[in-house]
Amino acid sequence: MADKHHIALIGSGTIGLSFAALHLTKSTTSTVSIYDNRPDLYDYITEHLPGYIDPAECSEKSYSDRITLAPSLKAAVEFADIVQEQGPENEDFKTKLWPEVEKFARSDALFWSSTSGITATVQGKGMKDKTRLMVVHPFNPPHIMPLLEVVPGEKTSQAAINKTLKYWRSLGRTPVVLKKECTGFVANRLAFALFREACSLVAQDVVSVKDLDAIMTASMGPRWSVAGPFKSYHAGGGEGGMQSFMEKIGGTVQNCWEASEKDVEKFKINVKAGEKWEEKMWKQCEEEYGNVDTADRDAKTKKVLQAAAGEKK
Amino acid sequence: MADKHHIALIGSGTIGLSFAALHLTKSTTSTVSIYDNRPDLYDYITEHLPGYIDPAECSEKSYSDRITLAPSLKAAVEFADIVQEQGPENEDFKTKLWPEVEKFARSDALFWSSTSGITATVQGKGMKDKTRLMVVHPFNPPHIMPLLEVVPGEKTSQAAINKTLKYWRSLGRTPVVLKKECTGFVANRLAFALFREACSLVAQDVVSVKDLDAIMTASMGPRWSVAGPFKSYHAGGGEGGMQSFMEKIGGTVQNCWEASEKDVEKFKINVKAGEKWEEKMWKQCEEEYGNVDTADRDAKTKKVLQAAAGEKK
Repeated sequence: MADKHHIALIGSGTIGLSFAALHLTKSTTSTVSIYDNRPDLYDYITEHLPGYIDPAECSEKSYSDRITLAPSLKAAVEFADIVQEQGPENEDFKTKLWPEVEKFARSDALFWSSTSGITATVQGKGMKDKTRLMVVHPFNPPHIMPLLEVVPGEKTSQAAINKTLKYWRSLGRTPVVLKKECTGFVANRLAFALFREACSLVAQDVVSVKDLDAIMTASMGPRWSVAGPFKSYHAGGGEGGMQSFMEKIGGTVQNCWEASEKDVEKFKINVKAGEKWEEKMWKQCEEEYGNVDTADRDAKTKKVLQAAAGEKK
Repeated sequence: MADKHHIALIGSGTIGLSFAALHLTKSTTSTVSIYDNRPDLYDYITEHLPGYIDPAECSEKSYSDRITLAPSLKAAVEFADIVQEQGPENEDFKTKLWPEVEKFARSDALFWSSTSGITATVQGKGMKDKTRLMVVHPFNPPHIMPLLEVVPGEKTSQAAINKTLKYWRSLGRTPVVLKKECTGFVANRLAFALFREACSLVAQDVVSVKDLDAIMTASMGPRWSVAGPFKSYHAGGGEGGMQSFMEKIGGTVQNCWEASEKDVEKFKINVKAGEKWEEKMWKQCEEEYGNVDTADRDAKTKKVLQAAAGEKK
């Protein structure tokens, strides 16, 4: 069980609400203050937050008096030991925010950004003490998905990283620390690499959007829920492990890589140049899926995570 | 429930055994004949096949008298309505095999190859009737993983494809027909595209093998068990769907793609040139994973598949 924490959330879009739900649900003592400059904040939170909280995990009675809506940034952060921002995704907003937060926050508070691309080194450039700022990038929605990519900046201290890991692990989450700041961090780099290939194969008419998704849910999805790609191919190599796998299958792997490169170029799978393939792909998605029932997806995903972890229920 | 079928399996390596288990378990009336020129075939099958069959799904009593070991190719295929090969992965073997099979098999039998790369058009070049040969490429191991990539050759008939789909669906599997023959088919093209990026990120020391696998099992694995990449990003775009997703996030996607291209080149993520990154990766796999418990992996994967399908148990 988590220690008692007070978390200030800056920004209450879908990620902010999902994080609020996560903090409140997974710890029964922690408190959350929300700061957002939208004028209807009270009505908005009252209407939308309950959709993120499973009543079987956390009753409204249990969480409703642990949230405060802060009238100012100062009020939000002054008592917090964790300040977590999910504001607009632009450098100007974030680089201005942190020196302000620093003015009002406790000297031992941790600062986390949910950004999907603006590094802590960049975000913290106007701060006095850069040691406690880091990226904590969720995989959406964070109240369902366990991954948190922890990406320290150049000045982030090991102590701040350790406290961050301890917090997330106490909530049963999976924080993973990246060793270097890089474009897109790791999860999106991996997902988008596969997505580019998916776009290319649809552009070439090898497969439809729907059939490609069917391939994923019947193969790599379940496999990678239980064992990631390295562990999977290492197992595939038998006693010789990954080395043996690459010695046997490496030629095929390389042929696929080379075919992919050629096709990506031929079919201009490039967001800037790629209107033709994009329109075709958009249309197929719209025709096939319309409005996706994300509640059903999330309920199934929770069960998948339990099954992959070997939990009984 | 499946109709009664007689399936001839040519080749009894791990894929052959897994297919034997699948056919015998998912239909309680079908019979299987196995042809393999290994001298110890009887002992080998007796020892290894039971490991592929869940006694809760199919008792030994229920399947043992539905298998025959064939002393010749003729004996294996002459009464079969499905002939499925998982022999050596070379063109010479396969192009010589099918004309032989054609001599002995029923005129209405379906011919399936488990190849991961040699197309039906190439395999069938010496056959008289090429209309009933196609690739049926499994995702290993097929007795666990539902996907079967059905890749018709240039001459394969729609009737043969339809019969193939009907068979696999009757067994509760997920056959997906590709519209064109292409290098590596779809599942491996997608998996290897992500794997290349994974190798690149490990080569750059952004992340370890173990942490990259942890990222996958805590994010894309479970997500793609329930919804493939197109459906996921279409949902991520909200009401505007995939078009809206790409308009909002397309810039980030493109930045990742360009960073990936540069890094793959810089770190020579190429099987032919890549001894340095490969050795590092092999070592990490060996140190981290040693011998993988695939029985545990497969048991969890079955539960993940049930959870993703919304099944109760």
